[in-house]
Amino acid sequence: MDNISRLMNPRSVAVIGASGDAQKTSGRPIAFLRKHGFEGRLYPVNPRYTEIDGLTCYPSIAALPEVPDAAIILLGPERANQAVAELAAMGTPAAIVLAGGYGEAGEAGVARQQALHKARGNMRILGPNTIGLINLTQGITLSASGALDQDALRAGNIAVISQSGGILGSLLSRGAAAGIGFSKLVATSNEVDLDVADFVDYLVDDDATEVIALYLEGLRDTEKFSRAALKARAAGKPIVVFKVGRSEAGARSAASHTGALAGADALYDVYFKQLGIVRAQTFADLLDLPFALASRRTMAGNRVAILTSTGGAGTLIADALGANGFDTPPPGEATAARLRDLDLGDQAVLDRNPIDLTLAGLQPQIMQEAMRILLESADYDAVISVVGSSGVARPTLMADAIRDSQRDSSKPVLAYVSPYAPQALLRINSNQGVAFTAPEACASALLALKAKACIVQDTPRAQSSRQHMSAEDVEQLPSGTLDEQQSKALFTRFGVPVTREQAVADAGEAIEAARALGPNVVLKVLSERIPHKTEVGGVALGLSEHSIGQALDDMRGVVTQKAGFAPERFLVQEMVSGGHELILGFHRDPQLGPALLLGMGGVSAELLRDTSMRLLPISRNDADAMLRELKTFALLDGYRGAPKADVNALVDCILAFADMATTLGTKLQEAEINPLRVLAEGQGVRAVDGLTLLA
Amino acid sequence: MDNISRLMNPRSVAVIGASGDAQKTSGRPIAFLRKHGFEGRLYPVNPRYTEIDGLTCYPSIAALPEVPDAAIILLGPERANQAVAELAAMGTPAAIVLAGGYGEAGEAGVARQQALHKARGNMRILGPNTIGLINLTQGITLSASGALDQDALRAGNIAVISQSGGILGSLLSRGAAAGIGFSKLVATSNEVDLDVADFVDYLVDDDATEVIALYLEGLRDTEKFSRAALKARAAGKPIVVFKVGRSEAGARSAASHTGALAGADALYDVYFKQLGIVRAQTFADLLDLPFALASRRTMAGNRVAILTSTGGAGTLIADALGANGFDTPPPGEATAARLRDLDLGDQAVLDRNPIDLTLAGLQPQIMQEAMRILLESADYDAVISVVGSSGVARPTLMADAIRDSQRDSSKPVLAYVSPYAPQALLRINSNQGVAFTAPEACASALLALKAKACIVQDTPRAQSSRQHMSAEDVEQLPSGTLDEQQSKALFTRFGVPVTREQAVADAGEAIEAARALGPNVVLKVLSERIPHKTEVGGVALGLSEHSIGQALDDMRGVVTQKAGFAPERFLVQEMVSGGHELILGFHRDPQLGPALLLGMGGVSAELLRDTSMRLLPISRNDADAMLRELKTFALLDGYRGAPKADVNALVDCILAFADMATTLGTKLQEAEINPLRVLAEGQGVRAVDGLTLLA
Repeated sequence: MDNISRLMNPRSVAVIGASGDAQKTSGRPIAFLRKHGFEGRLYPVNPRYTEIDGLTCYPSIAALPEVPDAAIILLGPERANQAVAELAAMGTPAAIVLAGGYGEAGEAGVARQQALHKARGNMRILGPNTIGLINLTQGITLSASGALDQDALRAGNIAVISQSGGILGSLLSRGAAAGIGFSKLVATSNEVDLDVADFVDYLVDDDATEVIALYLEGLRDTEKFSRAALKARAAGKPIVVFKVGRSEAGARSAASHTGALAGADALYDVYFKQLGIVRAQTFADLLDLPFALASRRTMAGNRVAILTSTGGAGTLIADALGANGFDTPPPGEATAARLRDLDLGDQAVLDRNPIDLTLAGLQPQIMQEAMRILLESADYDAVISVVGSSGVARPTLMADAIRDSQRDSSKPVLAYVSPYAPQALLRINSNQGVAFTAPEACASALLALKAKACIVQDTPRAQSSRQHMSAEDVEQLPSGTLDEQQSKALFTRFGVPVTREQAVADAGEAIEAARALGPNVVLKVLSERIPHKTEVGGVALGLSEHSIGQALDDMRGVVTQKAGFAPERFLVQEMVSGGHELILGFHRDPQLGPALLLGMGGVSAELLRDTSMRLLPISRNDADAMLRELKTFALLDGYRGAPKADVNALVDCILAFADMATTLGTKLQEAEINPLRVLAEGQGVRAVDGLTLLA
Repeated sequence: MDNISRLMNPRSVAVIGASGDAQKTSGRPIAFLRKHGFEGRLYPVNPRYTEIDGLTCYPSIAALPEVPDAAIILLGPERANQAVAELAAMGTPAAIVLAGGYGEAGEAGVARQQALHKARGNMRILGPNTIGLINLTQGITLSASGALDQDALRAGNIAVISQSGGILGSLLSRGAAAGIGFSKLVATSNEVDLDVADFVDYLVDDDATEVIALYLEGLRDTEKFSRAALKARAAGKPIVVFKVGRSEAGARSAASHTGALAGADALYDVYFKQLGIVRAQTFADLLDLPFALASRRTMAGNRVAILTSTGGAGTLIADALGANGFDTPPPGEATAARLRDLDLGDQAVLDRNPIDLTLAGLQPQIMQEAMRILLESADYDAVISVVGSSGVARPTLMADAIRDSQRDSSKPVLAYVSPYAPQALLRINSNQGVAFTAPEACASALLALKAKACIVQDTPRAQSSRQHMSAEDVEQLPSGTLDEQQSKALFTRFGVPVTREQAVADAGEAIEAARALGPNVVLKVLSERIPHKTEVGGVALGLSEHSIGQALDDMRGVVTQKAGFAPERFLVQEMVSGGHELILGFHRDPQLGPALLLGMGGVSAELLRDTSMRLLPISRNDADAMLRELKTFALLDGYRGAPKADVNALVDCILAFADMATTLGTKLQEAEINPLRVLAEGQGVRAVDGLTLLA
């Protein structure tokens, strides 16, 4: 942690391979450091110079007059590794390696990156293949990003961590143009050592940082990231992430359905949600949502006032809000009366929302007063004001009104800039306002502010305390696929209710079993080699002790023909009818770890993707929420006068299944109850069929 | 039509209520006309001036030296109506009324708008409450829009029709900043006379217009609009519409489910799709998609090459494309070999897509050659190039490469500008290129280009030729709700297969009917006062001639208790089992007219919204497509080895139901078959229950 602090805020910086030509990449860092006001000691290192821009240039790392707090290495990959070894040996806390040609560049690059990892010793490395980092709070730019060519970089309270240097530059330049300020920007790129989680962890403690914007291509250490994210949540510092990979083919081969149903990217949605992280849906949101969140304003309800002097743009905003579930009610009588007192002329429309001031909105005093009235009104939880064509010629009009009117309120105030009016945007955003140029951004920003209000109230994920199996018992479990009977026997140990059943080998045993389990029973073929019994004719329903003997002999014949081998065992099972069929599955995501999936019936889950997911561990609230997230939850909740299903028993079952997964750890690869029959209230649930894959 | 031509391209313009102060709204039109190069005759009218800006000013309309081709009226509403009457009397072809205070301004305004409508006589009116129109092809600006303050307005091939003046100004100024040119821009606003359909119709014939962008709040005359849109489609001129109203509460009270299931806005999606109109999903798309379509390039397949010199931004594009169903395959061997010949240095990545040129991409010749190779390659159907940070300092680099390389190809070429680099954007767009600043825009633009390729092949909606009922027969139908038996008798006349059934009054009749229809029958209560029979215990399944007598007496008791009256009639029906239950409904949308809805089962349609819709009339292809659009279509198509359903019979049934709706015209308000049981291939379909509401 101390090393990262020194990297982010060094008192002395060595620039290895510095060039005197500020046009070259290797010349930029010193030029940028001086341009943006670095006040520490600066040591260029390059045997070809004795001086760069008035600074003494040292011929080698060994010749440096002190151990620097941080080094920025501008050499090509081979020489960079050598420099890293020298700096590490000297005790330098941290270095930045800009060179590419490492992990991203084929086999030779991967080997080079491994050598770099070894060379670093105890020194922390940012990169390689990074554009560096920028600390705007202290005016320290350890970077070659062309975006630093700009003169005025605005310090602010948004931190950026990006796994791409180009994206960092894009966000920095777009932010500067829009009047959005940053605290720190870091490109972690190849992450040979320091990764996004390290910087999230650091930035949560950074007083200048209020919100963290994250550009993510993949996570190297999910657990470390989770810890850092939960720390940010506890500190009330929102994280907004834009994660690529939405288009990965979701279907993966798996013995159970669960793996295929749980698309890898959809599981990231779940992961972020469980950590209280906002996922940006568009790239623009990665700048817009943090900016809105950094205003520290609170969206306490759902009602938004739209204040405009131009009709169409107000309608756009109302439409975007409505499509995202916000209410835009007309002003109540008291609020309307206060607005009328402003003397707005007879064309102003005050009985509707958008509230259209028409031409009166061009008078600064009136605009400001109208905003103040709406912010004070109990009718609204947020105000969005529209900048019309007047914003082009008079860029300060709305900026002043927003700044002055919002002081006494904690409600969100957003502005939508309708025409191309970059000056108006800049003025609002750099004067404590929050303005956007896309109507959709206003809606997604309010959604993020609402979500932030919820995050604080949320409870962290609970660890299950129950234990049903000792570590030795787990050790002794077999490997590979368990058949239905073995799977259900395992589930039972953790409290999952299963159908009564008995394995049999021939018609005689089957008749006896049917007598004990009847009157109605089911006959199934029993073999771990047949995961989909129906497809080989291996399931017969509605049998009795009288019909089961013949049914078994028939089934043996059909299965032998279809499966290519003669089955030796069968399962006689009580027939459970009524209620609803669900699917409850467990799989282990290679990135995100153990996950549960709940779905309604076969068709709803598979064709209509009506499923919900959680990463483990889960609390009772989580299990309950999984259920309620199903679009078909109404079916369990007394839909159209049907009896309510035993939702409590279902939640118990989900928790028992989750306990099993937690207890078995990596021994459990996949498990599925399909169907899980949920009966009427008070009658519980039954695992009717099950499948398990053990490591 | 002639009047509209004269309005769009007048040789003489009278400006009624012109002011000499160019800062005032009433002073702007003359200032703008002269600034943007109007070459016709210009007649200010205002008794308070004798001259404005060197032009003779006339004291009254009567004093004008000729009948102008068009007039622009800048007076307040009352005086505007008077001026309209005078201009109309004189024979002026068309006038624009800027004043507000009409239909949008309460009761008094509505009355004023009616008076305006009357005053116009045969003269065509644009407005009132409009910002006017702008013809950039001929440099004629009949508008007071502040966006005309800009010096250089780029003429192009995109026409804008907007129901809001503010939105017109927004599009014009945003387009100008991005280098996007327009042919004509018209704000129809209150549409007392000329509406969007009139201008679509006009602009399809306008040689300078290639694509039409439409901002729509509502349609006044759907049929006229449909005709104009089909004309545009036939002419190969795409229409892109942004329609607000996405958030209208979809649920509406209706006797059948169909009305509630068919959300009003979702039906607009269907309407636009049937007309070949592209619906913009974001406001930015309303500019971006027409701009891409105006390039006249053809997206023949699904494979896109991404050419970049910066990794992260290329990944953003790949992700956006993947999420929209595009393929981004790596270059094939031949293409990769040609790229390698460019001598790109050892860091360039050529075996993957995005194809990363790294630093070599900053050499104009190499960038241009690489683009040419990808455009010539049979591996790709489109190329997207990424402008990285070099675009800030060197805005022409990519613009030149795109312009020169795309000449010999008809494939789409898009650029994504990653940093804030407005000059690069402007240069590309004003040099035959198409550049966007949002990665998502690249994907939606390619989707629109793909859709355009499909539109041309599509067949227009077919009118049904069958007739099963004379106009007199239709006349003689009763009014109000028909019960199940009456409904199904009506459906049968058009060829909808229904269950065999018989109405009965008591147990004795029921037993006889069961004997005739058995062995398995269903008993239902029969009353148009009970639309939801199940909810009052009015359905009993699986009866025989032996059990039906008692069942009828029981049902009478239960229904009497629950419905509050004693039912007098019952229906005995053959019991049809197997296959799948669907819902087929008809309702009449107040805006868009007669519509069909098809859905799978009760739960899939209601809770999971798995429905598809079409506006009437439909062709056999439409009916077939409705079916295939269902997410649960797989169930009918032999899902998991189950027998295929009788899809042909289902399509026949949809067409028969559509025929009924077309034949009955406005007599038919709502109709629904629920469930419609679709049996296995060759066994047809059966309407099991039905409901009809007649006017």
